[in-house]
Amino acid sequence: MSDRLTALRRSVDQPPAGFDWDENAWREAGERVLRLVAAASTDWESRRPSPDHPDDALKLFSGPTPQDGVAFEELMTRIEREVLPTSAYNGHPRWLAYIMGAPAPVSVLGDLIASSLNQNSGLWRVTPSSTAIEVQTLSWIAEMLGFPSAAEGIFLSGGQMANIVAHAVIRDAKVPWDARAFGVRGFNGNAPQLRIYASSELHYCHEQAAEILGMGRQAVRKVPVDESYRMRLDLLAQMIAEDRSRGDLPIAIVGTAGTVGTGAIDPIPELVSAARDEGLWLHIDGAYGAFATLADNCSIGLRALSDANSVVCDPHKWLFSAIDAGVLLVREAGRLERSFAFHASYLETADRGARVDFLERGPENSRPQRAFKVWLSIQAFGRDGYAAMIDYNIRLAAYLEELVRATPGLALAAPRELSIVCWRVELEGLDRPALEELQVAVIEEIERRGIAMLSNARLQDGRTAIRACITNFRTRAEDMEKIVKASAQIGSELAAKSRR
Amino acid sequence: MSDRLTALRRSVDQPPAGFDWDENAWREAGERVLRLVAAASTDWESRRPSPDHPDDALKLFSGPTPQDGVAFEELMTRIEREVLPTSAYNGHPRWLAYIMGAPAPVSVLGDLIASSLNQNSGLWRVTPSSTAIEVQTLSWIAEMLGFPSAAEGIFLSGGQMANIVAHAVIRDAKVPWDARAFGVRGFNGNAPQLRIYASSELHYCHEQAAEILGMGRQAVRKVPVDESYRMRLDLLAQMIAEDRSRGDLPIAIVGTAGTVGTGAIDPIPELVSAARDEGLWLHIDGAYGAFATLADNCSIGLRALSDANSVVCDPHKWLFSAIDAGVLLVREAGRLERSFAFHASYLETADRGARVDFLERGPENSRPQRAFKVWLSIQAFGRDGYAAMIDYNIRLAAYLEELVRATPGLALAAPRELSIVCWRVELEGLDRPALEELQVAVIEEIERRGIAMLSNARLQDGRTAIRACITNFRTRAEDMEKIVKASAQIGSELAAKSRR
Repeated sequence: MSDRLTALRRSVDQPPAGFDWDENAWREAGERVLRLVAAASTDWESRRPSPDHPDDALKLFSGPTPQDGVAFEELMTRIEREVLPTSAYNGHPRWLAYIMGAPAPVSVLGDLIASSLNQNSGLWRVTPSSTAIEVQTLSWIAEMLGFPSAAEGIFLSGGQMANIVAHAVIRDAKVPWDARAFGVRGFNGNAPQLRIYASSELHYCHEQAAEILGMGRQAVRKVPVDESYRMRLDLLAQMIAEDRSRGDLPIAIVGTAGTVGTGAIDPIPELVSAARDEGLWLHIDGAYGAFATLADNCSIGLRALSDANSVVCDPHKWLFSAIDAGVLLVREAGRLERSFAFHASYLETADRGARVDFLERGPENSRPQRAFKVWLSIQAFGRDGYAAMIDYNIRLAAYLEELVRATPGLALAAPRELSIVCWRVELEGLDRPALEELQVAVIEEIERRGIAMLSNARLQDGRTAIRACITNFRTRAEDMEKIVKASAQIGSELAAKSRR
Repeated sequence: MSDRLTALRRSVDQPPAGFDWDENAWREAGERVLRLVAAASTDWESRRPSPDHPDDALKLFSGPTPQDGVAFEELMTRIEREVLPTSAYNGHPRWLAYIMGAPAPVSVLGDLIASSLNQNSGLWRVTPSSTAIEVQTLSWIAEMLGFPSAAEGIFLSGGQMANIVAHAVIRDAKVPWDARAFGVRGFNGNAPQLRIYASSELHYCHEQAAEILGMGRQAVRKVPVDESYRMRLDLLAQMIAEDRSRGDLPIAIVGTAGTVGTGAIDPIPELVSAARDEGLWLHIDGAYGAFATLADNCSIGLRALSDANSVVCDPHKWLFSAIDAGVLLVREAGRLERSFAFHASYLETADRGARVDFLERGPENSRPQRAFKVWLSIQAFGRDGYAAMIDYNIRLAAYLEELVRATPGLALAAPRELSIVCWRVELEGLDRPALEELQVAVIEEIERRGIAMLSNARLQDGRTAIRACITNFRTRAEDMEKIVKASAQIGSELAAKSRR
């Protein structure tokens, strides 16, 4: 052995200690963490949906980079004393803000298994189990939504990323030049303006997708809605015709299955026909609403999303998966690879079957095993279990709606289709600006008192509604009653102050 | 109470059972999962880096959507019997393929806490603790890399997503029109061709970014490298001049700090000057190499990345975080919001401090709390702990390099700077095609025998090298010795067969 080799051998004799754990260390640390996790995931009546003093977090989590390591127990204590009290609990039975699902415990433990296996779910060679599980989970979700189970798909971090990937696929499929090579300018910088149609109630992610993909925000045409917040088909046709006569290139219609504001569902059967007639791609943004197709009390129009070219859904909402789990399904197999694969030769080979390289289907090379927790949950609850729980959530919303109707001083503010209810405190003796301020003040006061976490919806005439969205397996009838009672009571307290 | 209200109340009296757990259920299920996780994360000598029969996964994970729920214990048994044997173990001490970090147990348990808290880390209002923790972790990482700790940043799913977001920021910052509104065509469809310069050893994600962002793959100009696989500065200057004279619009230079193939580091100090002189943005792709700045044995040029306009690094590589944890840092605060914020009024307000809405900084509205596990790990190991371990990984690579040099039948195939070593089996009596096949066959046979997981590198003259990348706290001197011995031995076995 050369001197150099001997010296090098000596220099790597012992690795620095402390990084790895044996089974004992795993057990001790794991049990400590489990106590913390179980305590933070139970005993909800003792807990507020949102923290008392959120700005405490700014003070607690500051300071320079630690030079030396800190003992594990000290870190756990810090989490209990500092992280938990400054966290918001979207698993709380009265967390009804935005559209956030409560995380089912089985999916949380599924995430632990996935993290420990650390599968980088991009290349078949390095993640056979993870890839096969993702393919199977996608095919289950396709079946649930009425898509062919052979439809192609991919897990992404959420509805926004899934919609961005959808728009990339649509752009690349619908322009008559090689968009991947030459971009949105086209081969000679002479490309037409692309156009996408969505209702004015669209999630902002579609405009963001157009920005990111270089089409520009102006590519998105917002079609006005009717009094039920559904896209107006007459205006859709008119706008497409206008754009065509101007020389623009319409490529897609985006229908929303469950708008952010009121949970409205666009007239999907009619959009299917319109897209077919116009030669456009029909994409359904069902981040919130798609899984309601499972429920008996689902609206009939919603089920027509099974005829779309692509659909986005969020298992981390109504499949009660922990964040993050968004899904894009595309009816025609091969489309994702046509936009993202960098080894096009792969596409030539006859039958790779489930030996997919998911990095060829999206914009992520490193990607966590998001499907695993969903795969576990679908087995734990079954299709029937999910159907019953989503049905229950929608019935809770119907009950909330009726409670609002029956309560003096409150008024329903928008039609309800899924599990979003919008209402207002409507009291005499306040002018319009004071009434608008009142709605926001009620939401904030309900949050401040730790009763519930609600959010607001912007109504068609610019007014504001108090809004509850139920995508939570912990929410019960009593919670609806508490919220309605609190809105009415806090509403009149604040109105009295405001009138003084 | 009206009849309708009474009927609705009765219909929501009891939620479907089985979704939620009490503390006992958490403890029992948690302990069961912990046994599984600990068993899969220890006792490495009994385990192979990659599975024996990966295609088994195709058969195991097929079949229709489950109708009914399955008992938890049955699911755990299925995972032990079906998932573990078809999984690849990038935590194995001899997993040296691609660039994958082993997940430190503390980060795996950090992920469990984050999953259970289920913070959707986009809006300050719903995740104060998570936001403050992400801001703090980003500032620690900035400090580690020599960036100002006030530099702006965001966690994304990996280096690829982080690089895509970087290119969006660069595009929007450097074009003289409103790219978000009008896209890459410009206001009147008269925009010039954009140009980005990277070495021919670039990760393909930069070309993919150009595709996704609508600039087209042709926007990326690949600058040839020298014999050390570093970008040639003379050719860079020449290509920029050519493009300018053609009327194109150069916007950025991308330097690589640790190429995928050989771990080469572009001449960063010179790229800093070139970008300044040419008025271009300098972005450093340090997904692999950036954290080597912590190590004593780091090359001096690498530390100059602290002068770049932006840098990407992957904590799930050399900070030994579980997947996914990619980071983009941008020197000039406000740039991310300028590309992604949809509430521009936010930018007007004087001091939001750490009250960031991270959904305004990137393309994700739903986003998991990726920073948490990294925040926990940085505290557990400290800057010094990481420095020592990265230093050790680089020394292991130096030892592997010297072992290859000292072993008959093996030859070093490329210069080593970080922890990637490339070598070849070079034996007499084989023609060039046979020798090329031999390299790949050796990699595959080492994998098949369960000795190690290696990958290959493409060399400048088109030849193939056997490649090991050490970003693993479990790898030791003995592992290097096993791999070198196996390459030499399997190499001559296979060569003997090939010569027959």
